[in-house]
Amino acid sequence: MNAVPLADRIAAGDPRAIARAISIIEDEAPGAADLARGIFARTGRAYLLGVTGPPGAGKSTLVDRLVAELRRAGRSIGVIAVDPTSPFTGGAILGDRVRMQAHASDPDVFIRSMATRGHLGGLARATGEAALVLDAAGKDLIIIETVGVGQDEVDIVRTADISIVVMVPGAGDDVQALKAGIMEIADIFAVNKADREGADRTVAAIDSVLALQTFAPGAWRPPVVKTEATTGRGVAELLAEVERFREHARPAAGSRQRVRAEFRLREILQRRFMQHIEHTVLDPGELDGIVDEISARRLDPYSAADMIVRRTLRKYTV
Amino acid sequence: MNAVPLADRIAAGDPRAIARAISIIEDEAPGAADLARGIFARTGRAYLLGVTGPPGAGKSTLVDRLVAELRRAGRSIGVIAVDPTSPFTGGAILGDRVRMQAHASDPDVFIRSMATRGHLGGLARATGEAALVLDAAGKDLIIIETVGVGQDEVDIVRTADISIVVMVPGAGDDVQALKAGIMEIADIFAVNKADREGADRTVAAIDSVLALQTFAPGAWRPPVVKTEATTGRGVAELLAEVERFREHARPAAGSRQRVRAEFRLREILQRRFMQHIEHTVLDPGELDGIVDEISARRLDPYSAADMIVRRTLRKYTV
Repeated sequence: MNAVPLADRIAAGDPRAIARAISIIEDEAPGAADLARGIFARTGRAYLLGVTGPPGAGKSTLVDRLVAELRRAGRSIGVIAVDPTSPFTGGAILGDRVRMQAHASDPDVFIRSMATRGHLGGLARATGEAALVLDAAGKDLIIIETVGVGQDEVDIVRTADISIVVMVPGAGDDVQALKAGIMEIADIFAVNKADREGADRTVAAIDSVLALQTFAPGAWRPPVVKTEATTGRGVAELLAEVERFREHARPAAGSRQRVRAEFRLREILQRRFMQHIEHTVLDPGELDGIVDEISARRLDPYSAADMIVRRTLRKYTV
Repeated sequence: MNAVPLADRIAAGDPRAIARAISIIEDEAPGAADLARGIFARTGRAYLLGVTGPPGAGKSTLVDRLVAELRRAGRSIGVIAVDPTSPFTGGAILGDRVRMQAHASDPDVFIRSMATRGHLGGLARATGEAALVLDAAGKDLIIIETVGVGQDEVDIVRTADISIVVMVPGAGDDVQALKAGIMEIADIFAVNKADREGADRTVAAIDSVLALQTFAPGAWRPPVVKTEATTGRGVAELLAEVERFREHARPAAGSRQRVRAEFRLREILQRRFMQHIEHTVLDPGELDGIVDEISARRLDPYSAADMIVRRTLRKYTV
């Protein structure tokens, strides 16, 4: 046990304390709630930047470029890379190592990969809590990078302060890809690998979909920026658009904070009640038995839930 | 109000009753729980086939081919297409219309598109309940088609009896795509658009990743099938593999049923408690006030949850 409390070491920006805190929270180890409670008052200052897009769009390379550019501007950075791991390849661990090397000597950059699987309470919870730790550690900007167009990933990015959707030439040309849930969350589009054939066609395709929408006077119209993550071309323009959006959205900044607060509260409540039911209301093994009955169609899940709710609330009557 | 109860009309396979029941459940309209309870005992017979893969892989066309092939074999089919809708394009509705036409005259095919957004209680809940309705309606096979590599979509497909992951030439060549969370759920791989250049390379890439894994004697090794959904080539082979897997997995069929049962019970319980808290425990508007306090960092979400849990359980003591 360290003499200085973990929360204070996090606040001092100690990378080992940050790493340990994220692990504790990720694994829901004992003390996770107390730790999160302890750092919460120190959070709320960081700007959360979500980056999403299909696999192979070059998001990791683009995020590395963004980090380099932001470091030149003197900002401290946290990166949470949500890495869909396969049990075959162990993706997250490999990715972590490769990515850590580039910024290994820089104490103002903290990069953490998180596997999509195996989080108690879900990926969005683990990501949100890791962002809290980095926020409490004083990072100016936290980049959350997710793969794909899944609802969970979209939710993660949606609760960020700004969302960048990364597309690649070819991928955006058919309506299929454009309607794939990501159009609606983009504050900025980055067409990466812009040196490839068809980049202008992809920009035009995005523009044509945006043209279908009417924007109220003064409303934000998502810009489309061409980038080449491998060379760094367009990255400064992308960050300029991020700054422009940040200024534009400043009056409404509180509403995304509020969405995050409500999401977090509901999530904690749901877990608390499930734990209470499993450990206090039901006898050991009873939940398994109920699931067996439902599985065999001898009991329906609605009646089972009624029974459990009744017992939970009655347990406390005299 | 129809004289015949909705549950009976569903059991008779009435398409309008099925459509209405899914809407009631999707919208959590009054009577949704009673309806689900009423049909539950009639479920558990259908085989659930999950189809997932990146946008643009040709999943919809492939599913249409599967439906046509299965109809020739005399099976009745339900299709739930999870359609990531953009508010710009109204994808789900458009897709629905186009797809319905092909099988419009066939009473033994029921196709329903579901948008990824706007479901009370989440997409996985809505999809699972829609599958229950189609199961109760006597469909032999229910195909659930989702886009992407998101955790939610993967969870939906994971609880199916069999999961087909659709890849396209080119997309599977880099490790990035292969590790994208979908390797681990595939019971069968379909490399679609197999007439395209690079199809064999994609098959080889999948095989090489599979080769990294050791399969226990008698364990299922996911086969890789080349398909051309536009011409129908390979679709019969794909269905033969589905049948082969079904036979192989028959001894363990109960375990996926059990996963679905537990998922459903937990999901219902969580919603019940949240509703109870919002409508009974807290005063009107109180939750909003708590969220405001958390958002302003005057209250942390863990202490807020403690307080709400205490009040919920105390409310019933004398």
